[in-house]
Amino acid sequence: MKSYSIGIDMGATSIKLGLVDASQTIVNRKNIPVDHYQSPEEFFSAVERTVRNIFEESAVCAEDISGIGIGLPGCVDSVNGVVRDLTNMQGWRGENIPIAATIRERLGISIRIDNDVNIMTIAEWHIGAGKGCKNLICCTLGTGVGGGLVLDGKLYRGSTLTAGEIGHIPLFYMGEPCNCGNRGCLERYVGNAAIVARTLCILQERPNEGLIIRQLIESEDKQLTPKIIFDAAQKGDSVACEIFRTTGEYIGVIFSGLVNTLNPEKIVVGGGVANAGNLVFDPIRETVSRYAMPVATEKLQIVPATLGDDAGIHGAALYGSGHDV
Amino acid sequence: MKSYSIGIDMGATSIKLGLVDASQTIVNRKNIPVDHYQSPEEFFSAVERTVRNIFEESAVCAEDISGIGIGLPGCVDSVNGVVRDLTNMQGWRGENIPIAATIRERLGISIRIDNDVNIMTIAEWHIGAGKGCKNLICCTLGTGVGGGLVLDGKLYRGSTLTAGEIGHIPLFYMGEPCNCGNRGCLERYVGNAAIVARTLCILQERPNEGLIIRQLIESEDKQLTPKIIFDAAQKGDSVACEIFRTTGEYIGVIFSGLVNTLNPEKIVVGGGVANAGNLVFDPIRETVSRYAMPVATEKLQIVPATLGDDAGIHGAALYGSGHDV
Repeated sequence: MKSYSIGIDMGATSIKLGLVDASQTIVNRKNIPVDHYQSPEEFFSAVERTVRNIFEESAVCAEDISGIGIGLPGCVDSVNGVVRDLTNMQGWRGENIPIAATIRERLGISIRIDNDVNIMTIAEWHIGAGKGCKNLICCTLGTGVGGGLVLDGKLYRGSTLTAGEIGHIPLFYMGEPCNCGNRGCLERYVGNAAIVARTLCILQERPNEGLIIRQLIESEDKQLTPKIIFDAAQKGDSVACEIFRTTGEYIGVIFSGLVNTLNPEKIVVGGGVANAGNLVFDPIRETVSRYAMPVATEKLQIVPATLGDDAGIHGAALYGSGHDV
Repeated sequence: MKSYSIGIDMGATSIKLGLVDASQTIVNRKNIPVDHYQSPEEFFSAVERTVRNIFEESAVCAEDISGIGIGLPGCVDSVNGVVRDLTNMQGWRGENIPIAATIRERLGISIRIDNDVNIMTIAEWHIGAGKGCKNLICCTLGTGVGGGLVLDGKLYRGSTLTAGEIGHIPLFYMGEPCNCGNRGCLERYVGNAAIVARTLCILQERPNEGLIIRQLIESEDKQLTPKIIFDAAQKGDSVACEIFRTTGEYIGVIFSGLVNTLNPEKIVVGGGVANAGNLVFDPIRETVSRYAMPVATEKLQIVPATLGDDAGIHGAALYGSGHDV
């Protein structure tokens, strides 16, 4: 009886693997550090070894597994199970890597792959904050800004399987150049690097403000991180609070356009910046409520993701075992 | 045998009705001028009278009609056949008018209603420029800027049936206030009124430019219209050409965000401004090609609508007779 599935969440610093039972509980989990998957060949070996390890520890075998899902940080051809481009992974660039076929051959288990944001969307939609939604936007805020779309009760992938890049909607007309080739993209203003840069800029402009944040920078290796900005905001630092408010307003303006276009019933927001909670959700909600069309916001909720770091394993396991519609 | 359908296209200046045969040819057409439908009651009487007139002229009866579709310029509850709000129609405001039920009762024929942009989208998708597309955005450029979405081979309406309002995606961050409540909306910069206002502004700023356009304004009642700007651009007027270029760039920036988000295979553009042809399509295409993500534009085409003023009748007839998925 195939009562388990395996979810594999490949990130830039580690791969998380989880054996998931029929009640969607992760009953065994493993991590593969980044130095073990510097190339596709290392990736295949490390994944095979770790899955066999899980099998042994949990006394299951390939016949017990309904499928393996893999979420990857980049451009994925989910139909053919091929990785097109993992921009942030050295050693993986510019190749069409047949991940699904290779792992399938090595383990004898059915494999499906997709990009990490679609995988997170599947998780939040089936067992997380977006459960039961017919029309749902999932947004991840972190180094990058990603999006997954559930439309008319189905994960929407688009014509070349690249839909959902809401981080690359222009926020400022002909604004800052973005890595994607566009200008003024949302990601360029609310990605981690942008938040840190904007904070440093304000600290320099206003030497008498941001005292708490300055103390925290001093005490933590003099390196400003989004986490420090969040901690400072929690302690009432005016600059840090302003940064999250502006970030929320920026996101809210883009969401207002998305709400007018896609009229979803829910927007689920996850990722690092979303951990700032109401510091960022309040300005997002206020901006959307003020600027999106009233008829489009009648049923709208904007809520935090609920699965946290496990969304990647859960979504991949659900997807691998056939859940994506 | 039900081999005909009827399409009704209600606009701000007239209602167009067409009897459409099985080969999608409009075999009889009528117009109702705006002074005959100043209120819902007048609308019902005028439509009933005109349909019966068509029946008589074309020797058909209710039994020959598979359905009537009606496209309306405003906010429509297509599921319940009720008009929520026709903003631009005096005498129709703030009421939930059961159009479908009333006409059905009077004529004994099945009725479906939707907003005019969804109706145009259905027409272009089934028999026009978007024929055969799985993922399609239709955009109308005129007094307002509207959008209809076909996603995964289905007209996408959203959670409160209001999806597709791409004219109300912010182009300029916290830009000009828009009637919709938002700021900086696309429509505020490329709607007819905006194009005329921008042209007048440039003419005032640069007294030595735009000589052709100035002549045309003088010769046509001194009232600047988008048509005059188009005619002047055709004759090489520098200001008029600049206006269409800027308009195309504005549209292109919003399209680049839409392409990154929805990854359609085609964007069909119709409405008055689209009649400017390459004057506006060239800058739209150049901007999208430059700024949207390359992988999202691999299969993308941006093309003019092909059904022109008949899209409303065709789309309504198709929709009324059951075509919408």
